[in-house]
Amino acid sequence: MSQSPGELVTALIKANEDRDIDALLAVLSEDARYENVPMSVLTGHDEIRSMLEGFLGSAKEVTWEVLHQVEQGNVVMNERVDRFVMADGKKVSIRVAGLFEISDGKIAVWRDYFDLAEFTSQMA
Amino acid sequence: MSQSPGELVTALIKANEDRDIDALLAVLSEDARYENVPMSVLTGHDEIRSMLEGFLGSAKEVTWEVLHQVEQGNVVMNERVDRFVMADGKKVSIRVAGLFEISDGKIAVWRDYFDLAEFTSQMA
Repeated sequence: MSQSPGELVTALIKANEDRDIDALLAVLSEDARYENVPMSVLTGHDEIRSMLEGFLGSAKEVTWEVLHQVEQGNVVMNERVDRFVMADGKKVSIRVAGLFEISDGKIAVWRDYFDLAEFTSQMA
Repeated sequence: MSQSPGELVTALIKANEDRDIDALLAVLSEDARYENVPMSVLTGHDEIRSMLEGFLGSAKEVTWEVLHQVEQGNVVMNERVDRFVMADGKKVSIRVAGLFEISDGKIAVWRDYFDLAEFTSQMA
């Protein structure tokens, strides 16, 4: 059974919350482009796994609240509050808007828009 | 003839490009909430007009390139590159994701997500 674009994105959010990198990569195409717009562009499973193992591995709780999600054709966008409890107990909350392009039943492009200082000031 | 949610947002984008604040307010509800997420929240026509007269008034060219726009129910989201040529000739380009909630045929909520430093570093 193939998943709709919106279902693929929902599965991606859940995989982040579960810190399950295999489940996350399962919905991304092999050459997926994952861009944290003010930070970095990662391309392909190896780069994405490497970054996420570091980042999600440093969090003990991940909760991404989806405020809105809209889908049309092969594009999905959502508005979220991404919350993390880091290993040392620090809580981080980032307001995010995400864009996802779906191709051949996988997420091929993922761009998250947020204010970098909102993130770094809480991580400091 | 009432406009669809997507048409209202397209009219809002065009009003920004035209620096036509009356046309812009015409598609926003009286008590609209306009949030530049890392910067400020403005509520209602007076606050929005006051900010935009200052900001759009300081630009001599405004071009907002819409990369994607998706709409579902009363919510529209888009991914844009907002370009400005300021009065002194300085060029500013900001990568933005926008969220719009439509109520009673007007835009009632407008939230733009972007990296504040990307904006301020170019304005400096």
